[in-house]
Order: sequence, then C-alpha cells, then structure tokens
Amino acid sequence: MNSIDHAPETPTLKIEAFFKSAPPLKDAAEIETKLKEFVDRNSSGNEKANRVVCVTSGGTTVPLEKRCVRYIDNFSSGHRGSASTEYFLKAGYSVIFLYRRGTCQPFCRSLPDDPLLECFTSTDDSSIQVDPSHAEVVKRAIAENRSAVNGGFLLKLPFTTIFEYLQILRMIAVSLRSLGPSAMFYLAAAVSDFYVPWESMTMHKIQSGSGPLDIRLAQVPKMLYVLRNEWAPVAFCISFKLETDTDILLGKADMALKKYKMHMVVANELQTRKEEVIVVTEQEKITVRRDTTQPGADVEDPLIKLVVDRHSAYIDA
Amino acid sequence: MNSIDHAPETPTLKIEAFFKSAPPLKDAAEIETKLKEFVDRNSSGNEKANRVVCVTSGGTTVPLEKRCVRYIDNFSSGHRGSASTEYFLKAGYSVIFLYRRGTCQPFCRSLPDDPLLECFTSTDDSSIQVDPSHAEVVKRAIAENRSAVNGGFLLKLPFTTIFEYLQILRMIAVSLRSLGPSAMFYLAAAVSDFYVPWESMTMHKIQSGSGPLDIRLAQVPKMLYVLRNEWAPVAFCISFKLETDTDILLGKADMALKKYKMHMVVANELQTRKEEVIVVTEQEKITVRRDTTQPGADVEDPLIKLVVDRHSAYIDA
Repeated sequence: MNSIDHAPETPTLKIEAFFKSAPPLKDAAEIETKLKEFVDRNSSGNEKANRVVCVTSGGTTVPLEKRCVRYIDNFSSGHRGSASTEYFLKAGYSVIFLYRRGTCQPFCRSLPDDPLLECFTSTDDSSIQVDPSHAEVVKRAIAENRSAVNGGFLLKLPFTTIFEYLQILRMIAVSLRSLGPSAMFYLAAAVSDFYVPWESMTMHKIQSGSGPLDIRLAQVPKMLYVLRNEWAPVAFCISFKLETDTDILLGKADMALKKYKMHMVVANELQTRKEEVIVVTEQEKITVRRDTTQPGADVEDPLIKLVVDRHSAYIDA
Repeated sequence: MNSIDHAPETPTLKIEAFFKSAPPLKDAAEIETKLKEFVDRNSSGNEKANRVVCVTSGGTTVPLEKRCVRYIDNFSSGHRGSASTEYFLKAGYSVIFLYRRGTCQPFCRSLPDDPLLECFTSTDDSSIQVDPSHAEVVKRAIAENRSAVNGGFLLKLPFTTIFEYLQILRMIAVSLRSLGPSAMFYLAAAVSDFYVPWESMTMHKIQSGSGPLDIRLAQVPKMLYVLRNEWAPVAFCISFKLETDTDILLGKADMALKKYKMHMVVANELQTRKEEVIVVTEQEKITVRRDTTQPGADVEDPLIKLVVDRHSAYIDA
C-alpha cells in the first residue's frame, strides 16, 4: 500500500493527498450555491452581529470497496449535534448543520424512531391524524424546523462517507471566512480515524474465501490542524473527544487542545455523555452537568450557554 | 485469536460456538411472546391455509469493540425486503419482517428520507397539514401499515448487529416449525461474512496511535446450512446473492443453491438490482425483469408472483 508507506509528511500535504485521492463530491456545485446564499443572508456588514456556527453531527463511514457493499462506521446517534443546534438557534446563532444521513435531526429528539408510522393514524374518511399522545412533540418538531429552515437560520447538509464529510467541511470553512471571529466550528461528529485510501481500495466486493480476512487501514489525516491553521484560522473552534475509558479521556482532550490549537475541547465518556461533559480550555477544566431537578433537561443547555459566553469573549478580545 | 485458529469443524458446531460467545439478546422474552402470538394467530390447524414468510431486510453490523464505537456495516437500503413484504401481503401471506433499524419500511419506499420534516407543514392555528404533493403517498403509507400491523398480518422485528440478527432468526425458525412447508424464509438481508469474535474483541475504543491499523476478521459461520438442516428443515428457503462483479455472480448463486440446499437463490448485481434479478433453482435459471411499460413498476412484483407459485407447488408436492 503505497499511500501508507510513502505518506507525505506535513498535515497540510497529507490532507491534500487525501483530497486528491478522494472520489469527487457529487453535488459540490449545489452545496456551494446553498452556502453562498446562507452566508450572504447572514452577513450584515457588521462582523460581530452575525454569529454562524457549523455544527457537525453523526459518524462518518469508511468504504472498504469502491462499489461499496461494506464499510466501517463510527457509532453516533447525532443526539449531541442535533440538541446543540437547537440551543444555538435559541441563542440567536445561525447554524450550518453538517449531519450524517439518517441520524437525529434538530427538534426531533423526542420522537420515536419511525415517527410517520408510529405517531399517525388514518381515519375512515382517509384523512391523517396525529395520535394524541404524540401530538405535542410532533407539532413542535414540524413547526420549529420549518421556522428555522424557512427563516434562513438553519442550513442542513448531509454526508455519509469520510470523503464527503471532509470535502464539505472545507467548503464551509472557506465560505465562513468572511465572518471572521463570529464564525464557530462545533465539531461533534464522530470522524473516522482510519480509512482505506481510495486508490488502494478493491473495486469489487471482497470475497469470503476460506480463511480470516485481514484489513489494513491508514490513518485519516488530522483535519483539525488544517482547519485551524489554514481553512478557518480566525474562527472559534471546538472539538470533541469521546472515549470509553475515563482514565485516558482528559489526557487525550488536553493533547487535542494543544496539538490542534482548539479553543475548547469537550471531553465525554460514552456511558455518561448525556449526563455530563468536561470542557477543557487552556486555562481550566469545567464540568458541565445537566440540571437533574428539571425533567428532560439536557446537558447541551448549560454547555451551549458556556460556549456562547466564551465565544462572545473571543469576539470582543 | 483462539476462536479462529481452533474453530470447531462442522457448521452446526461452528454456529453453536458463535452463539455461545455472542452477547445475550436484550429483549429475547418480549420477542418470544410476540412470535408466539403471531404464529398462534396464523395457525388455523390447516397447514396449507397459513402461509407465513419471514422476510429479512437491510444489512447487519459487526462491532469492532465491545463498548461499541466502531463497526463494520453491510450496505443495504432495505428496499428489496420492504418492497417484497408489500407484495407478499398482497398475495395473502402473513409476514415477519426482520429488518435493520433505520432501513426502508414497507409502504414507505416512495417517501423522502425524513418524511415528518419534509412532507408536513404546520398552520397558524398549530394544526398539522400534509403537503399536497406528498399527500397520497403519506396517506397510503400510514393506512396500509396500520391495517397490516393491526390486522395481525405484519410483525416487525428490528436488529442491528450480526449477533442480534442470527439469534432472532433462529427464534423465528423454531417458532415457524409448526407451520411445516407453509412457512417460508426469504433472506434478503445483507449478512456480514466476517466478524470479530466477541471474546477476542477489545473492550475499549481502538486508539489511533501512530501507524496503520490492522484488523483480522473471522468468517461468520454459514447460517444458511444450519437454517435449512436444523432450524427449519421443512420450510421453503430462498436466499440472495449480491455481487458487484457479474462474471462471478451466477456461479456463486449456483454454489449457494447446492451447498446450502436452498429452494431458490435470487442472484442480483449491485448496479442493475432494481431492474432485473435471476432466479436460480435446481432445474432452471429464470430472468425476472420489472415491467418497464408501467411507470414505477417494481421487479419485486413479478418476483414475488414467481416465488408464490413455486411455494404453492412445494406445499402441494
């Protein structure tokens, strides 16, 4: 595997090589247009007035074959990203929601898996009714989503593969440059660490022969570094660190903060991530917990308040 | 990896070892109850009158870690399984729909990805309305799904991992034994060929260190053999063969037919699978094409007609 053995040295060269070998993005022109419209709508000429956050959400996939039958996926329901999007909108931000197809959508977190089939009944005169038990959440989901999308405050862009994710993220970063420090990246997506380089990928379905299957995966270039240093050097950047092992979590979050010069790293542990997170900055480590005295309170509520607060300080600095 | 090197020899022993090492099914008792009710409702005492088909749909996942962050997935939208379910119901069959969570549901194939947010609007008096352009498909989806589920003709059981899939499939096979040859297995799900044995799996998230990652995967035991020979020896069994390389497709379908003693193997190629399939039986190879003179006609329409026809002959034999 040439691409692994002779990988270029710097993060920038690595990511350029990654993009060069990636399959081209299908609807690049359409995304470009949507982004331009969105940024134009959110640019009043006063940098400080236009706060736009790009929230990434859900996991990326890594195809194992070019005509893809099998792929490696990262688990992520998209709950963190969709909840955070709601609170950012509430705080007056406009949001670019870069999400994995099929994952949780803003305003839809309280709905069952398959809301259309589970929340509605059809009556004898063939009209459709919402079950009374779901009526409130269904109405809220439809109304709030429409209001945010139609009002121009919420732009949703879907991805599936790591190749799509990184290419769209770069487009967003470039298009948000004009907003200066008012732009924020809130990188909650679970991005694959390993992938099979496109040019070394098998064309056809891997055959199940007689023995075990050995797969060699290359490391995905560290996009955070390039985002901070080149794509969006003035934007406020928050990344996430998820681990299942608490013993190594804070150390890894600290390392990410320093190595990639993030403004904040949100550390979360798989089992307790809906209860609390630890926000790591250069000066401090702040534990943020959901308000357990309020039924249904989210940890994203105080988390976004803290983030917005720090973003304000960053803009004013 | 002990479990690979010292794997037991026969398919039956292999699958027993697989189940022994698999994580226990969480809602086994609830599934058992649902299956019992469903089979009771569809047992009139006359074997020939009660046709029940188990349709499997969507792809299975293979966790790479016990506290699962990463997994290998098989691509499958669930379109084939959900379309086939509709035609089986139309033909008077009762259907156990064993489907991958989040994949396409019967009667919902013509809907957009996110029907709740894309097909509905809320009006000023906070009531909900279907967009006129989607009204017909939305109403049909809700009404036909409700009628099939509430009438007791459609039982939906979700899975995610290969472990869940095989355990539930075995429960279904055992519970359908009482129906003799009137039971059918229509195995359209994309089942993983390779997996990481649970006991050799790492507990925590695999760390992205410095170099490439090597993964060794073991073969999933050939469940088709055990299903035909032990779990459901009298049922009518149809399996699917999907390839991206047409050159090897028919040979592999033929091999599956003989090796696993299937009654039919449906061979399909990734690019053309919605246009045509080739049905392989012991005596013949039949190409089934969708009716291109009818707008929106499915290849599953003639396919299920052929399947039902052969199943009738099998029951009468």
